[in-house]
Amino acid sequence: MRTLPPTITPARSRDLVGSVIDASTALLAEQQHDIVRFAMGAPSEDLMPMERLDQAFSNAGRGRYDYGATEGEPQLREQILHLSEWAGSPTRDERLLVTTGGMQGLDLAFKLFVARGDLVVVEAPTYTNGYATALSYGAEVLAAPVDGQGLVVEALPELVKHAGRAPRAIYTIPNFQNPTGVTMTRARRELLLQLAEQWGSVIIDDDPYGLLRFDGDHVPGFAEIAPDHPLLFQVRTFSKVIAPGLRIGWIDVDPEVRRLAINAKQAMDTCASVPVQTAVATYLGSGDLQRHIAGLRGIYRDRKNAMRSSLQRHFGDLATATDPEGGFFLWLTLTGEASAIDTERLFPRALTDGVAYIPGPAFTTDGSLRNALRLCFATSSPERIDEGIQRLARTVRHDLVATGALV
Amino acid sequence: MRTLPPTITPARSRDLVGSVIDASTALLAEQQHDIVRFAMGAPSEDLMPMERLDQAFSNAGRGRYDYGATEGEPQLREQILHLSEWAGSPTRDERLLVTTGGMQGLDLAFKLFVARGDLVVVEAPTYTNGYATALSYGAEVLAAPVDGQGLVVEALPELVKHAGRAPRAIYTIPNFQNPTGVTMTRARRELLLQLAEQWGSVIIDDDPYGLLRFDGDHVPGFAEIAPDHPLLFQVRTFSKVIAPGLRIGWIDVDPEVRRLAINAKQAMDTCASVPVQTAVATYLGSGDLQRHIAGLRGIYRDRKNAMRSSLQRHFGDLATATDPEGGFFLWLTLTGEASAIDTERLFPRALTDGVAYIPGPAFTTDGSLRNALRLCFATSSPERIDEGIQRLARTVRHDLVATGALV
Repeated sequence: MRTLPPTITPARSRDLVGSVIDASTALLAEQQHDIVRFAMGAPSEDLMPMERLDQAFSNAGRGRYDYGATEGEPQLREQILHLSEWAGSPTRDERLLVTTGGMQGLDLAFKLFVARGDLVVVEAPTYTNGYATALSYGAEVLAAPVDGQGLVVEALPELVKHAGRAPRAIYTIPNFQNPTGVTMTRARRELLLQLAEQWGSVIIDDDPYGLLRFDGDHVPGFAEIAPDHPLLFQVRTFSKVIAPGLRIGWIDVDPEVRRLAINAKQAMDTCASVPVQTAVATYLGSGDLQRHIAGLRGIYRDRKNAMRSSLQRHFGDLATATDPEGGFFLWLTLTGEASAIDTERLFPRALTDGVAYIPGPAFTTDGSLRNALRLCFATSSPERIDEGIQRLARTVRHDLVATGALV
Repeated sequence: MRTLPPTITPARSRDLVGSVIDASTALLAEQQHDIVRFAMGAPSEDLMPMERLDQAFSNAGRGRYDYGATEGEPQLREQILHLSEWAGSPTRDERLLVTTGGMQGLDLAFKLFVARGDLVVVEAPTYTNGYATALSYGAEVLAAPVDGQGLVVEALPELVKHAGRAPRAIYTIPNFQNPTGVTMTRARRELLLQLAEQWGSVIIDDDPYGLLRFDGDHVPGFAEIAPDHPLLFQVRTFSKVIAPGLRIGWIDVDPEVRRLAINAKQAMDTCASVPVQTAVATYLGSGDLQRHIAGLRGIYRDRKNAMRSSLQRHFGDLATATDPEGGFFLWLTLTGEASAIDTERLFPRALTDGVAYIPGPAFTTDGSLRNALRLCFATSSPERIDEGIQRLARTVRHDLVATGALV
């Protein structure tokens, strides 16, 4: 095979960081022995409504194999309107565009609003592929810290002042954030809306987990606080509440932005797969999703509680963890003697010991947060969770002994 | 509704030309009366293997709702390998990546290789959305003429010399081109490969119709002439031979480019819809496609011949048409007294008269070719084709009378 001559080295390759999550997953896929999987952020198959989906796909209807409207099939948009109403954030059809998963919603947002050299605020830590998408359009990222109350919005003015220019976009996951599981407070949401208006920045509001609150009180979304805000770009998906393999999501945006997004999507993939849109509309029309979500909430609450108990039991004071009120993830920070451990270095050892996670640096723009890691509590039963946390604690202790930190 | 403040006017909006085809389609959708539809480039539903697809979607299998590998489901890649072998262009698994339709293949190609200001050669006329995708990455397009033997490759050196720099990419539809229906000769393909190598340009080889040759001799593809050429980016799709609503295609590229494409796709839509990939693999595994394609070829040959006869009968010397040996389209150029007619202006009148087409300027970068139009012969029966061509000829004659060109 001839190698690529230097003149055609793809112009954007330096911006296209592959997903570290995916790299970990590839390594994970090679393993033959028993592994407790806390790595991927996907519901386990037994928590997907498989039979109902099978029925929906079997429910043949004419028209489902032809090109569809770029904005999405009308019957699916209608169901999304019902769902939004049920979820307490009613919207309008003229604001909706069906996407090929939530990822494409992010791709659209950055494609529309970010040109090379534009400043984009991202959370530190944040969702790796969201960050990769911003980079693929040449964004310069400004990482802003996250604490137990979400993005530290109060820190933004100083960071932006230091950067010397206003951000074009602010990318946030306000509810049960990936990877930390924390939720942004109402006060911070209000301040963020105010700053975005002042700077003329778009808020890219990525909310895959919002419907999965299992504890605590509802925090109003940006659209509830500021209805019809023209700078709010809401990215939504069925991946976490139905099934990720469908690749169906939607954006809820100003009608003028939607018009641009339709044009952009025509040059991306024309429309989302029509048989899948039809099947999802059929499934939603059956009314099963609300019941399904109620079930998931109870299960995820139990699993989160199980994981926190196991962490307490097996880690003691070697780690602290966030206490999410919903979603899939909690964030573990190694402390005390363990705080010097590099979770990326530890990863192959943990795999050998039978437990998988995503190392902290996978979620940062600068490879920091090396003593932290993301754990997905959504995929495993409480018993498996305890087994996995026990294995992880053993790996950490062995490492402390091996490196001489613990004797 | 507040309007968007000028500071956040989307950076790329000026590059995101909406598809004129789609705009025409929207107008078309509003019509209530009988219209012969020569506009869209889609197989009619009665020519899609609907029952077989319904069966394939009903064929539930575990795993089809989870995230899939970004490069595509292994069983689908295996079927694509078989199909490529059958089609006379065998390839290897390490070169394949399943895409969300052919459109995403183009999006990937331009995302990987084109940065703002890069020169991209496009055919004049060409596929509107391919051109829009190049623009969305800030390409400067260099339009090169097409004649009865495809892209006029001999004209490129002079055009490139005049542009003052080598093109980063050359976007071509070599077989039964959209919109003209013409096929590039072997000699021109060889010359194009040579020029691309000399300039270090990527050849983006978009071939949705290649399997639909119904007349004439096979012309070897770029990959047959120059196997494993690192600069060849092959974009393929099932839209025209199975059904477009599926949104399943693939790219066949150098393994090194594929690695970059996997990274890029992770930040676009993660993977193509898994239940659809599974269903397409099941359908392909049944062996029906080869039989189906053989049937399509006969039907499209009849329809193309019917359209050319009708054009001869109803237009006489008011128009000339290309004579495609495959695919979906022929290109009509108004001649004589009719050569002053603007087909974009004529379009609403034609709709009223009960016939739809796509105006020539929709396929150019500069709004030229105003006296030409694209006709899709694939969608209608010979009888309907004759009715439609008769209506179109009537519209043209009425216009000549109304504008005083004909008395």
